[in-house]
Amino acid sequence: MAIKTTAKLLAIVPFIFYGFLGSVMAQKNAKRPNIILFMVDDMGWQDTSVPFWEKKTPLNERYRTPNMQRLANEGVKFTNAYATPVCTPTRISLLTGINAAHHKVTNWTNIQQNISTDAKDSTFKPVDWNINGLSPQSGFAHTVHATPLPQLLKEAGYFTIHTGKAHWGPMGMPGSSPKNLGFIVNIAGHAAGHPQNYYGQQNYGNVLGKATYHAVPDLEEYYGSEVFLSEAITREAIKAIAYPIETKQPFFLHLSHYAVHTPIQGDARFIEKYQKMGLDSTEAKYASLVEGMDKSLGDVMDYLKKVGQADNTIIIFMSDNGGLSQGNLRGGGAHTQNLPLKIGKGSVHEGGVRVPMLVKWPSVVKPSTEQTQYVIVEDFFPSILEMAGVNSPKTIQKVDGKSFVPLLKNPALKDQSRSLVWHYPNKWGGTGAGINYASAIRKGDWKLLYDMKKQELSLYNIREDIGESNNQAAQFPQKVKELAAELSQKLKNWNALMPTYAKDGNPVPWPEQIAHKN
Amino acid sequence: MAIKTTAKLLAIVPFIFYGFLGSVMAQKNAKRPNIILFMVDDMGWQDTSVPFWEKKTPLNERYRTPNMQRLANEGVKFTNAYATPVCTPTRISLLTGINAAHHKVTNWTNIQQNISTDAKDSTFKPVDWNINGLSPQSGFAHTVHATPLPQLLKEAGYFTIHTGKAHWGPMGMPGSSPKNLGFIVNIAGHAAGHPQNYYGQQNYGNVLGKATYHAVPDLEEYYGSEVFLSEAITREAIKAIAYPIETKQPFFLHLSHYAVHTPIQGDARFIEKYQKMGLDSTEAKYASLVEGMDKSLGDVMDYLKKVGQADNTIIIFMSDNGGLSQGNLRGGGAHTQNLPLKIGKGSVHEGGVRVPMLVKWPSVVKPSTEQTQYVIVEDFFPSILEMAGVNSPKTIQKVDGKSFVPLLKNPALKDQSRSLVWHYPNKWGGTGAGINYASAIRKGDWKLLYDMKKQELSLYNIREDIGESNNQAAQFPQKVKELAAELSQKLKNWNALMPTYAKDGNPVPWPEQIAHKN
Repeated sequence: MAIKTTAKLLAIVPFIFYGFLGSVMAQKNAKRPNIILFMVDDMGWQDTSVPFWEKKTPLNERYRTPNMQRLANEGVKFTNAYATPVCTPTRISLLTGINAAHHKVTNWTNIQQNISTDAKDSTFKPVDWNINGLSPQSGFAHTVHATPLPQLLKEAGYFTIHTGKAHWGPMGMPGSSPKNLGFIVNIAGHAAGHPQNYYGQQNYGNVLGKATYHAVPDLEEYYGSEVFLSEAITREAIKAIAYPIETKQPFFLHLSHYAVHTPIQGDARFIEKYQKMGLDSTEAKYASLVEGMDKSLGDVMDYLKKVGQADNTIIIFMSDNGGLSQGNLRGGGAHTQNLPLKIGKGSVHEGGVRVPMLVKWPSVVKPSTEQTQYVIVEDFFPSILEMAGVNSPKTIQKVDGKSFVPLLKNPALKDQSRSLVWHYPNKWGGTGAGINYASAIRKGDWKLLYDMKKQELSLYNIREDIGESNNQAAQFPQKVKELAAELSQKLKNWNALMPTYAKDGNPVPWPEQIAHKN
Repeated sequence: MAIKTTAKLLAIVPFIFYGFLGSVMAQKNAKRPNIILFMVDDMGWQDTSVPFWEKKTPLNERYRTPNMQRLANEGVKFTNAYATPVCTPTRISLLTGINAAHHKVTNWTNIQQNISTDAKDSTFKPVDWNINGLSPQSGFAHTVHATPLPQLLKEAGYFTIHTGKAHWGPMGMPGSSPKNLGFIVNIAGHAAGHPQNYYGQQNYGNVLGKATYHAVPDLEEYYGSEVFLSEAITREAIKAIAYPIETKQPFFLHLSHYAVHTPIQGDARFIEKYQKMGLDSTEAKYASLVEGMDKSLGDVMDYLKKVGQADNTIIIFMSDNGGLSQGNLRGGGAHTQNLPLKIGKGSVHEGGVRVPMLVKWPSVVKPSTEQTQYVIVEDFFPSILEMAGVNSPKTIQKVDGKSFVPLLKNPALKDQSRSLVWHYPNKWGGTGAGINYASAIRKGDWKLLYDMKKQELSLYNIREDIGESNNQAAQFPQKVKELAAELSQKLKNWNALMPTYAKDGNPVPWPEQIAHKN
């Protein structure tokens, strides 16, 4: 008798139990938006037909990105968004919420482990940075040990997908595999920071006897075809999100293009019009890379619409650093590629760190809005977690970033008291102001730059002088001191790495020490 | 008023609706077992310490596979299980349920598309087989268009994972990517049929200037380490199943080892004992490959136990063809490697097609049982679907296989009236009886072989003469005629490919035409 009653109870309890859970989960899932982080590599702030400045520039006239325009029309345009000067630091800040000075992967990671990518220098010894990238586990030398964003999203019930460029750590290290960072699916992402080849006809580099470690993995079905790398990655991304959509799970897609990084190879679908424009051969190819990337965005948006997910999907558009402006690699004169911004990739000047950013969040973000408040890439970590409804996530690391979700919801919201910091105690190797051994801080309209080699501080009013042509350090010594102190304090708090002199092993002074000399 | 009532109703309906669905889904999931298909490459019927014959052989004494023994102790041992003579035909039969004569991928696929792997021959022209493998989409020349097993499992709610060797189609074709075949996750599977290198120290072949298309993809985190390929694949498989286990979804794991295929490289963890045994260097390496594969099985079983999934997981152990027995590639005398079986890989004799098979299904299959009924690899398709509770699956193809689930449940069940067919109208290139241009049929204890080149039929009683040494064709002409007729009929029904003579383009006769000549 007693047994029978228990059996009956057991038959009912699971129904109620699962019924309740099912309801909660279904409602939770229904509320939780899909999140697509559409990441472009090396894309400059002006590499688009969407004006991110107060007026349309000649570069805005050159590039054709109608789908970015479409995204901007449906969401908010951040006109003061920042990354770090080179790719890996940005990508690790994004996945951890930690400022680059703090996570200490201050330069791009080599494809092979235990190799510093710093160029040789006669004045400074190289800093002991985290050359092995990001690690979700402890015990790996020269890595930053942190809880990665996709891991937290996966644990919260998101189906996490990475497609395209990864570049979070070298071969032989956990960071080389996106699956170790919380991505359930990885397609074409590995230790490399750029593709060997964009052409399907060239198997994306996987050609016998010619393949390097930069040959793109996982795309064998397109070998020998005319499918351009940006297109292959897009098709794979769309195939991959079909699964969580069909199974009604929210997804996080990191659609991370190899474009528009070198090698600058023409995308045959788009190049003709740029050649007809009379552009230099390299610049025509570059513009076709940009448009191929933009087509990808449009294809994804079209697919979401087709499967009824457009209204439940956040799309964040971002680049990992400023546009390449080295004269030997780009067409046109050196450092003309990001005008009106100064210099380009590798620099702490605006050309190196200011990037295009767009966010579409249906029914949350008002269409065609603009947000001028400055934000930085480590802000993506808390922002995306907030979007996903992940409150008080447990992380190994202390997060430096600040959620930009309030800024999305209210374009009028501003915070001129916040300061952003860039720190690049490395030698990238390129030439130009603010490249190699440089730090910077922005607070309000002011930006202070520290050239560690020259031991110089320069001060610009970014709002009035976006091209950073008018150094006002001499006119505003108090502002210099104030910002130098704040920059120094932040760097000290993070135990930031500072170069040491080869001759005596002494570290370079903190910016505040220079400011006092002024 | 009316609006208010509707709103109230809507607030209740979803709760009931989701509640019901949630309950059904949860119960369905709870009942549905995980399924692991543990596939070994080129593993012979005797490459194990588990005796699959009526007595222990010297080879059973040589090899050490304690985890296969553990699996046999917990499940059923199929002592008459068959694959096809080479790998791709087996792998495609498994994923489609179609006999190789019928799907027409009768030989192994080249890593590059549109290339036949048939060896040159002066008598026969090559048959027009499906050299581009399996395709889930129509419109690809020289492919078999079929609905793949993992696709059906995925649609039924299984989380589908492939790790290791794939080999379902060449580069440039959909079959090269397991993701196109219904696998949500793919790790290390591509167009290749063997690894370039088993050593982590050699990056599994991914070494600059030395890499071939057979370099194993996706394992960068182990580059430069001592992690042997079988170990890396195992670790990746375990990491991959953690996700469906945590999210309470049933999973299908195709853990497909590259081992024990060539290149025969020693597994440092196990080789010493085989060297001490006095084995030939190649055979010592081979035995270490076998034991490394067996350790993988044990690791997976241990993990399932640890996470409480052992009782809800079916494990199927299988090999894709008989052991390699070519004298130039293996140690010992030619064709001694599968004794008492005749010949080895490539042959329709028992050494080429008879393989070790084990099935553990807790609370369904009685531990330590044995099933002598013969089964063949296309049976896996309906069997696994039945295990997963997928009834009347919609498939493009007509399925030839027959579920072995009743045989699992009842070891006494036999069917001597069923016939199995092998058809290899290709030239593999190796030497030995039953290799190149051969067909065979087994029915009851009788097996008829057709040598197309010699135009000869031979007849063996497999139960009495497992070594196929006593050709009884002359003594039993009626049995020859009966089996030749059945073999011919099946091949004709499937529009099986038959070689044609180079001199006049005429096809080789059907077996029944030869039988009548006897």
